[in-house]
Amino acid sequence: MKIKGFKFSGISANIKKNGKKDLGLICGDGPFSVAGVFTSSSIKAAPVLLDMERIKGGTARAIIVNSGNANACTGEAGMRDAVATSSFLAAELGALEEEVLVSSTGVIGQKLPVEKINAAIPELVAALDYGGAQEFAEAIMTTDSYPKMHSVARQINGKDVSITGVAKGAGMISPNMATMLSYIMTDAAINSKMLAHALKVATDVSFNSITVDGDMSTNDTVIALASGASGADIVEGEAGHLEFISMLKELMIELAKMIVRDGEGATKLIELKVKGADSKEDAKKAAVKIANSPLVKTAFYGEDANWGRIVAALGGTDVKLDESKLDIWFDDVCIVKDGLFKGVEAEEEATGRMKKKEISLTVNINMGPHEATLWTCDLTHDYIKINAEYRS
Amino acid sequence: MKIKGFKFSGISANIKKNGKKDLGLICGDGPFSVAGVFTSSSIKAAPVLLDMERIKGGTARAIIVNSGNANACTGEAGMRDAVATSSFLAAELGALEEEVLVSSTGVIGQKLPVEKINAAIPELVAALDYGGAQEFAEAIMTTDSYPKMHSVARQINGKDVSITGVAKGAGMISPNMATMLSYIMTDAAINSKMLAHALKVATDVSFNSITVDGDMSTNDTVIALASGASGADIVEGEAGHLEFISMLKELMIELAKMIVRDGEGATKLIELKVKGADSKEDAKKAAVKIANSPLVKTAFYGEDANWGRIVAALGGTDVKLDESKLDIWFDDVCIVKDGLFKGVEAEEEATGRMKKKEISLTVNINMGPHEATLWTCDLTHDYIKINAEYRS
Repeated sequence: MKIKGFKFSGISANIKKNGKKDLGLICGDGPFSVAGVFTSSSIKAAPVLLDMERIKGGTARAIIVNSGNANACTGEAGMRDAVATSSFLAAELGALEEEVLVSSTGVIGQKLPVEKINAAIPELVAALDYGGAQEFAEAIMTTDSYPKMHSVARQINGKDVSITGVAKGAGMISPNMATMLSYIMTDAAINSKMLAHALKVATDVSFNSITVDGDMSTNDTVIALASGASGADIVEGEAGHLEFISMLKELMIELAKMIVRDGEGATKLIELKVKGADSKEDAKKAAVKIANSPLVKTAFYGEDANWGRIVAALGGTDVKLDESKLDIWFDDVCIVKDGLFKGVEAEEEATGRMKKKEISLTVNINMGPHEATLWTCDLTHDYIKINAEYRS
Repeated sequence: MKIKGFKFSGISANIKKNGKKDLGLICGDGPFSVAGVFTSSSIKAAPVLLDMERIKGGTARAIIVNSGNANACTGEAGMRDAVATSSFLAAELGALEEEVLVSSTGVIGQKLPVEKINAAIPELVAALDYGGAQEFAEAIMTTDSYPKMHSVARQINGKDVSITGVAKGAGMISPNMATMLSYIMTDAAINSKMLAHALKVATDVSFNSITVDGDMSTNDTVIALASGASGADIVEGEAGHLEFISMLKELMIELAKMIVRDGEGATKLIELKVKGADSKEDAKKAAVKIANSPLVKTAFYGEDANWGRIVAALGGTDVKLDESKLDIWFDDVCIVKDGLFKGVEAEEEATGRMKKKEISLTVNINMGPHEATLWTCDLTHDYIKINAEYRS
C-alpha cells in the first residue's frame, strides 16, 4: 500500500517488553498541509498537547509514534520528553522541529523511555520506505490483534487521487475516539483549513461513532497530511471538494469498523441505528446508551435477541420517548412494534439473525426525523481476560 | 427476623421454570403509613405505575411481589394484569384494593401469568407468618445468589424501635437503583409525609449510590411501611426524627452494599470516594464515571492497581479538573500525588491492597469541598457468563 509523497518505517526500540515493533515513522517528501482531531478528554497526554500546538502552523513533515508507553500523566517531564524526541528526529531528518509531530500510546503514568527512542531513531530513519506502511501499522499496535490499513482511490478533476489511512484501536474505544490513533495520508492538493474541515466532518461519522467499552483515552489522535503529489487541486465548493470529503468518510468509516471488529475480545460487529429521534442529540444519546450497555453487549455475545435490555437501556436516558411508539428490529426482523413484543415466531427468527458475525440493530423511537448510526461490538469473556491481565 | 405488625410469606407459583420460590407477600396487621421511591427510567413497568398512583393515598396494607416476569413493556394488558392481581389479593385479605401494592421483576415484555399468580394467592395468604421474612426474601430473588435482609434497632424516646429491610438486586444496578426491589418495614409511628422524606434522603446515600453495570431497570422500587406497633412517635424536628433517619440510612446502606457484594459475578466490593470536587454534581459524576468504567472494573478483578485507567475515566467527564492536583489512594496507599505516579514501591504496596475482598479507592481532585461515596464491584468472567446465558 503506497501513497505518493510518503515514506514509512516501523521497528522495535525495546519499549514493549515482548520485543515487538513499537516505534513508527511517517515522513513526507516535504512539509505538507496538516490537520488534526484530538481527544476531548480533559486530561490530555503530553504528545497530544504538543501536536495541538504545532498543527496550528498548518504544515508538518513527519510523525513519530511509539507504542508501549502513553507519556500521559507524566507532568512537565512528559512534555520535555515529547519535545526532546521531536527535536532529535528533526535533526536526523534535516527538518524543522515545529514540523515534527509525536504520538504515544500504551501504559499511562510512566516516564517515556526517551533514551531508547532516540537511540533507535537513526535505524528508524534509515528504514524509511515508500512501501513501509505495513511496518508502520504494526509498530503502533497495542492490544490490537492485527494492523489496520485501508485505501480509497477515485478520480478528481481527471486526476487519480488516493487517500490511505492507518489506525490502531482495540479497547477504550468510545464515541469520541478513545485510545485510538489514526494517520490519514492523501496525495490530493488541499490547504490545511479545508483539510481540517473535511477531517472533522469525517471523524464525526466514523471514529466518533464507534464504541467498544465507553471509556476514553488521554491520547486519541487523528492526523491528516496532504502531499499534493497527485496534482489534483481541491477547490472549496467545487464538485471535487465534495468528492474528497466523501472519499475521506468512506475511508475513515472503514477504518472505524476495523477497530470495532477488533474490539478487545469482540466476536460480533453491531451496526446500531437509532431512528425517529426528536433531535440529533437524542438520537446519538440513545445510540450511545444502548451501545455501551453491558447487558445489551453480553446479550449479543450470548446470541440472545434480548430486546428487553435494549428498552431498559433506552429508558435510562432522558431521550424523548413514548413506549407505545417504539419499534425494534434485529436485521430485517421486527421483534417489537408499537412498544409490544411481536411474539415467539419473531423471536425465533431474530435469534437466527443473532448468529451472524455482523448484525444490524434498528431502534425507531418514532418521535421525530433524526437518526444516528453507531458501530459497537459484543462484551465477551476475552474482554475480561485481556483487561484483567493487560497493564494498559 | 421479625418486625412488629408485619407477616410475610413466599412460595412457588411456577412462574420461574426451575420451581424455585417466585411469589412473595408482605401483609400488615392493618393499613399502615406508606412511602415509595421508584425507577427514574422513562419506561416504567405497569406495577410501578400502579404503585406510584396508589401510594399517593398515604396508606397501604399489603405488597405482593413476583419474580420471573417483570410485567414491563406489556402495554395496557400489563396494567390490567397488575390491577387484577391486586384486586384478587385484596378480596382474599379482606383489604381495600387501593391498599394493595404490586411489584414484578424478571423477564421484560412477556405477559404476566396472572392465572398462575391468582391460583397461588390462597396458599400465599395461608402461609403468612410473623417469622416468614426469609421466605419472602427468597421469593423475590432473580439472579441473586442469596436473600438479602437486615435489621437495625435503637431506642427512640425510651421505646425500642426496629427497622427491617429486604432487598433483591444483582445485575442492572446503577446509580438510581436499577433492577432493584426493596421493602422497608418499621414499627415506628411516623406519618407518610415524613416517611417519604426519610426514604428519599436514605435512598440517595444508599441505593442511589451503588452501581454494578450502569444499566437501569423499568421496575426499581423501594417501598416503606410503618406499623407504629412500637408506640414510638416520630415527631418532626425532634431528636427522634433525626435518629430515625440515621437508622434508616444505616439499614439501607447495608442492604445496598449487600446488593453490590452480590453483583453479578462480583468478587470484590469497592468503596469509591471522590473528594475535593467543585460541586456536589461533579463529585457524583466523577464517581459514577469511574465506578462504571469497564477498564477500571476489570483492573480490580485482575488485582491491578491500574490508576491510569482511573485517570482516563475521570478525563472522560466534564468535571472541573486540574491534572496536577490529582491524588489517588488504594486503601491507605497513595499511588498518585499532584497528578504524578509515586513510584514502584507505592505501586507494590497498592497491589498488595488489591488482593483484599473489600477495597477503598479514594480520588481527591482538590478543586473544592464536595464529595461523594459510591459502592461498586469488579467486572468478571462470571458477569459475562451470567448475562450471556440468562434471559433477563
